Amino acid sequence: MKIILLSGGSGKRLWPLSNDARSKQFLRLLTAPDGTKESMIQRVVRQIKSAGITDDIVVATGISQKDSIVSQLGPELSVVTEPCRRDTFPAILLACTYLASKGVQYDEPIVVMPCDTYTEDGYFTAIKRMSEAVTANVADIVLMGIHPTYPSSKYGYIVPGKPSPAKGVSIASRFVEKPTVKTAEELIGGGALWNGGVFAFRLGYVLDIAARIMPGADFENIRTEYHKLPAISFDYEVVEKAASVAVTAYHGRWKDLGTWNTLTDELAEHTYGNVHGCPGDSTYIINELGLPLVCIGTHDLVVAASPDGILVSERRLCENLKRYVDGLGKRPMYEERRWGKYKVIDSEEFPDGYCALTKQLTLDPGKSISYQRHSCRDEVWTFINGEGEIVLDGKRRKVARGEVIFIAKGSLHALRATTSLTFIEVQQGTNLIEEDIERFPFDWDTNQEKQ
Amino acid sequence: MKIILLSGGSGKRLWPLSNDARSKQFLRLLTAPDGTKESMIQRVVRQIKSAGITDDIVVATGISQKDSIVSQLGPELSVVTEPCRRDTFPAILLACTYLASKGVQYDEPIVVMPCDTYTEDGYFTAIKRMSEAVTANVADIVLMGIHPTYPSSKYGYIVPGKPSPAKGVSIASRFVEKPTVKTAEELIGGGALWNGGVFAFRLGYVLDIAARIMPGADFENIRTEYHKLPAISFDYEVVEKAASVAVTAYHGRWKDLGTWNTLTDELAEHTYGNVHGCPGDSTYIINELGLPLVCIGTHDLVVAASPDGILVSERRLCENLKRYVDGLGKRPMYEERRWGKYKVIDSEEFPDGYCALTKQLTLDPGKSISYQRHSCRDEVWTFINGEGEIVLDGKRRKVARGEVIFIAKGSLHALRATTSLTFIEVQQGTNLIEEDIERFPFDWDTNQEKQ
Repeated sequence: MKIILLSGGSGKRLWPLSNDARSKQFLRLLTAPDGTKESMIQRVVRQIKSAGITDDIVVATGISQKDSIVSQLGPELSVVTEPCRRDTFPAILLACTYLASKGVQYDEPIVVMPCDTYTEDGYFTAIKRMSEAVTANVADIVLMGIHPTYPSSKYGYIVPGKPSPAKGVSIASRFVEKPTVKTAEELIGGGALWNGGVFAFRLGYVLDIAARIMPGADFENIRTEYHKLPAISFDYEVVEKAASVAVTAYHGRWKDLGTWNTLTDELAEHTYGNVHGCPGDSTYIINELGLPLVCIGTHDLVVAASPDGILVSERRLCENLKRYVDGLGKRPMYEERRWGKYKVIDSEEFPDGYCALTKQLTLDPGKSISYQRHSCRDEVWTFINGEGEIVLDGKRRKVARGEVIFIAKGSLHALRATTSLTFIEVQQGTNLIEEDIERFPFDWDTNQEKQ
Repeated sequence: MKIILLSGGSGKRLWPLSNDARSKQFLRLLTAPDGTKESMIQRVVRQIKSAGITDDIVVATGISQKDSIVSQLGPELSVVTEPCRRDTFPAILLACTYLASKGVQYDEPIVVMPCDTYTEDGYFTAIKRMSEAVTANVADIVLMGIHPTYPSSKYGYIVPGKPSPAKGVSIASRFVEKPTVKTAEELIGGGALWNGGVFAFRLGYVLDIAARIMPGADFENIRTEYHKLPAISFDYEVVEKAASVAVTAYHGRWKDLGTWNTLTDELAEHTYGNVHGCPGDSTYIINELGLPLVCIGTHDLVVAASPDGILVSERRLCENLKRYVDGLGKRPMYEERRWGKYKVIDSEEFPDGYCALTKQLTLDPGKSISYQRHSCRDEVWTFINGEGEIVLDGKRRKVARGEVIFIAKGSLHALRATTSLTFIEVQQGTNLIEEDIERFPFDWDTNQEKQ
């Protein structure tokens, strides 16, 4: 079996730690069994591997998350990036055609699952049952049903029907989307389960759908024509139209750690980072800034600080966060990239519209920034730690701590770290948008632009 | 009459807004009658002037506060700086010999007062009475007695005796330092007043004391020998030894805004700076960082953020702040200087002990940084706004937005702003202490080091 992990969303419900570049699944706040810190996506990948289900995982995601995924999960994991943001149906279609392009067989069981659900081991046992049910051919689609803990009106409900030949798997008799609380109570009384957003099917089932939409299309065609695919969920486009659907139940913990309130419930510690003082009960403090944060007293608060901003909120009111932070900050102030990380340390816009932005950047050893140029901004790089090599308008030389490089607008430049390499970059110009960048392939071995 | 304003203290009880360079009296959080923001010291100087008492004010302070005082009160006010920190007796002695050196007469009434007490107009009427009592020669020293509002065991009490010939002034019959609450109740029952730390006397009275300690010494001698003066308070060394002491009562508001709890009681607004969300009742938020701060819910909190750090505290628990912040941060991260201001935007110490510090600095138009050199650090200046002139190892040239200057260790450099001039400075080296600086006088008119 293969797993497709869906890594989406650029939510701000965990602002200021989550931003457009860093979704909640990348926050390293959970504690792994060995005591180290891990993110939601690192946790789910660790759980999949330790459950012994499969090592074949494809992450389906947007281009903006690719660097974070490679940085957190390593380069061996496959990542399929959507050319533009659609919905789960096109994303799963793309990932399935990717698997086909890599030689995965038509009958191979595929399990699609979210990367940010907080669950226990039984969840992965259920996934194994789903895969076995696909192999046993009990239905077109096999779903995971979550044992409901309260009559929620926010979830979809699956009513299990007669047992299937596969152990622990029933044929689904009925679906109810977001019922009233009263209907939900009746459904739960009748044994209904929440739809957990985990889908299993034979690869060929989805490939056949792809062939109907774009006859003869392979992975590359679908990537190219991606914007033409309907922006619709897999639930609506595939599950609802399936001739037969089965379901297996999972009874353990199942949580979306998507708000500060739910996330802090699962944190092993009350303070993260440079925190001092004497915080009161049920207060959680996460400080990603270099500055000291002192907390005294307080009750049931979340305090979170990052280069994007500072949050001080009552835990139970964090659900309202989105409305206050939408519109704050035009750009992420902190990013993990495939080459390392950066943070914005100063940002100024002067009355005449001229802008200056100062960053601290660290390249990991051996990593490089592509050969690029900007048309609207000058940059000054002051190296404060480590060693590396720079190419500036075709001229290559070593750089090290203490050196300064002036990169005028229009100059082509690339940088590679020999050791971990830290520098301060001052950008300035009339327009400091991220998009003011042209990239050119560069071959560090031959010292040439690639043709 | 002349006023000596005592501006001392480098307290951290208003951390992170107060630091070793910015004492609480310089925080611009109070609201002046015209609606603009003012600091405690600006408020008291405004009150003195609008009460029409005098325009002759000398500020007695430490060298570290001189730039803040000039920046907030303007260059016309006299500032006498102690060469080293002692106590109020030496500081007042120094200021008195300074006044004598400027030709102030032996019989001139002098009023010494703190710069950070929050009071009403009646306070200044009382000061006028004190000055008149000095002129009427009713006693060696005239004190201000504050009408007690509760039986505090933290204050000194003055028991007024028989009336003096001066209106509203009594001869003091007895002093009690920090009594028990029970004794304080009895004292208050008998009409005792708190000692408000305001002293009035003829200039000659203190000059005579100076002459007894250092015969023949003038202002310059006392400055040079300052470290030899006893580190003792004016209360102990002068008031207690005086042959006669008088007192006048003040009945209005009299508060030390020295803690977040007392300061926030006097704030006209609940939020300052880049603050969003929906803070709860009795929450005060002061954000001096560029980052947005979002607050939701909360009850009776103080939230304060500056380049020095972030505080989140229950208001009533702020009294305990000092114990948590002592030892945090080796250097101020924000300072107002006579030439403008700076903030530290990044600070790194690498495992090998090498350090890098990045600042954003703004020089006010016409202001200059002295001709100086550092022996342990290189500096890179990237100008991001305005125009000015730099002198680098004797060579003078114009600089403007977009330019970069590399200042190697050992290089002599000075900078003058033509317009408001902002630049990013990256310092790096093995030792980034403030004291790594040698200053040389430089004459911008003749373009020469001054002889």
